[in-house]
Amino acid sequence: MTNPTAAMLVIGDEILSGRTRDSNMHHLAKELTSHGIALAEARVVPDDRGVIITALRALATAHAHVFTSGGIGPTHDDITAEAVAAAFDTPISVRDDARAILQAHYDRSGQNLNDARLRMARIPDGATLIENPISAAPGFTLRNVHVMAGVPAIFEAMVASVLPTLTGGAPLLSQTLCVTRGEGDIAAPLGEIADRFPDLSFGSYPFFRDGVQGTNIVVRGSDGAQVDAAMTDLSKLVSDTA
Amino acid sequence: MTNPTAAMLVIGDEILSGRTRDSNMHHLAKELTSHGIALAEARVVPDDRGVIITALRALATAHAHVFTSGGIGPTHDDITAEAVAAAFDTPISVRDDARAILQAHYDRSGQNLNDARLRMARIPDGATLIENPISAAPGFTLRNVHVMAGVPAIFEAMVASVLPTLTGGAPLLSQTLCVTRGEGDIAAPLGEIADRFPDLSFGSYPFFRDGVQGTNIVVRGSDGAQVDAAMTDLSKLVSDTA
Repeated sequence: MTNPTAAMLVIGDEILSGRTRDSNMHHLAKELTSHGIALAEARVVPDDRGVIITALRALATAHAHVFTSGGIGPTHDDITAEAVAAAFDTPISVRDDARAILQAHYDRSGQNLNDARLRMARIPDGATLIENPISAAPGFTLRNVHVMAGVPAIFEAMVASVLPTLTGGAPLLSQTLCVTRGEGDIAAPLGEIADRFPDLSFGSYPFFRDGVQGTNIVVRGSDGAQVDAAMTDLSKLVSDTA
Repeated sequence: MTNPTAAMLVIGDEILSGRTRDSNMHHLAKELTSHGIALAEARVVPDDRGVIITALRALATAHAHVFTSGGIGPTHDDITAEAVAAAFDTPISVRDDARAILQAHYDRSGQNLNDARLRMARIPDGATLIENPISAAPGFTLRNVHVMAGVPAIFEAMVASVLPTLTGGAPLLSQTLCVTRGEGDIAAPLGEIADRFPDLSFGSYPFFRDGVQGTNIVVRGSDGAQVDAAMTDLSKLVSDTA
C-alpha cells in the first residue's frame, strides 16, 4: 500500500477509567480512509506527561501524520500542549494570535479571560493554529502532529479543517459481500482468493442475527478494477459452496 | 496508586478502517475499574503479525495484565493466537481439549469441523482456555495475556469469566460534581484542591447542553474517606465562586 499512514493518540484518564466512551477514533478512521490516508495505529494514554511524550515520539517517527485528541482545556489535567512541545524540544508560551482569538471570544460572551483560560493560548513556537469554531480555543499543528480537542463536536470540526490541507493517496475503496454461511465454511476458498490479490486486503466478520449465521466479507484496496475482480471471484465462490 | 495495571490490545483492520466501531475497550475499562485494576493504556493495531508481536511484548512487560480482542476466528486474517505464541517463543498446535469443545459444538449444530474451523483449536503450549458460551471457540490465557474474541457479546462473556480469577486492588471509586460554570472559571481553585489530595485524580469535563455551559468534575481514588473530603472541598469551592 503506497498511501501515507497516520496514527491517533487519544489522551485522557476519563477514557481509560470507562467514564467516557471515545468516539473520536471511529470518526477519524472513517475520515482518513475516505481521504486516502491509512490509520495504521491508535493508542489511548492517560493524562501523564512522560507517557504522552514517549508515545508521541514513537508515533511521529513511524507515521506521516499523528492526530491527538484531548487535554487542551484550561485545567490542571490539560497537559497535551506542553507535552507536545516537550516531545520536540520546542519552546511554548502564550502566543499573541491565540490570545487574540480567546480575548475576542470571551469579550463576546462577557466572560473573563483569566489565567486558567489563558493557558489555552499556550502554543509551541512554529506551530500552525487549527480553528475551533465552537469554543474558540485553537488546536495546532507542530511538525506532523495535529493537536485537537477531545469534545467530539470540536474534534470533528478540527478534522474537517485539517484534512483538506494533507496530501492523501487514492481513496481506499471497499466492497462488502454478505453471505449467510459461517466463516468456517468459506475460510479456505476465501484464503485462496486473498492470495491471488496481494494488493487487496480481505476481512471476514461473522454475525448472528435473528438466528441466522452469516459472514460479511470486506475487500479493501485503492484499485477499483481489482476490487471488482475480487468481488466477482467471491460471488462465484459463494454460489459454488452454497 | 498501588492497584495493578492492565493494557488492552484491540486487533483488527476493521477498526482502523472505520468499518467497525470498537466497543470492547469501553466495556473492559468499566469492568477493570470496578475490579480495582487500572487500565493504563490501550492500543489498536492492524492484522499484522509483526506489529502485534511488538505491541504484545511491550505491553506484557509494562503491565500486570494484557487483554486482547479480535483475530481468533477461522479465516486467513485471524492471526492473533499465532502471534501471541510467537511473542513468547511458545509452540502452538491443535490441542485436544480445544478440539473436543469445537467437535461437540459442531456436532450439536450439524456442521462440519473442517480444517478452517480446526484453526480455532490451535492453542499455545501451557495456555489456559477461556470459555466461550456463545460460539464455543475458546480464548486462552498465556502468562499475563488474556486472548479474547472481538465479537462484543463473546468478548464480554470472556471478560466475565476471566476477571474473577484476577487479584484486583481496592475498587477505584469516583464521585462527580456537576457545576454550571465554565472550566476556565473553576480551573485555578480546582488545581489547588487537586494539589492537596495527591492520592486522588481530578478530571474536569466541560459540556454545553441546551445553551448552558457547565463542567463535570470527577474525583477518583481507592480511599473513600479522601474522595468524600475532596468532594466537600469542591462543593465549598463552587458556592464560593458562584
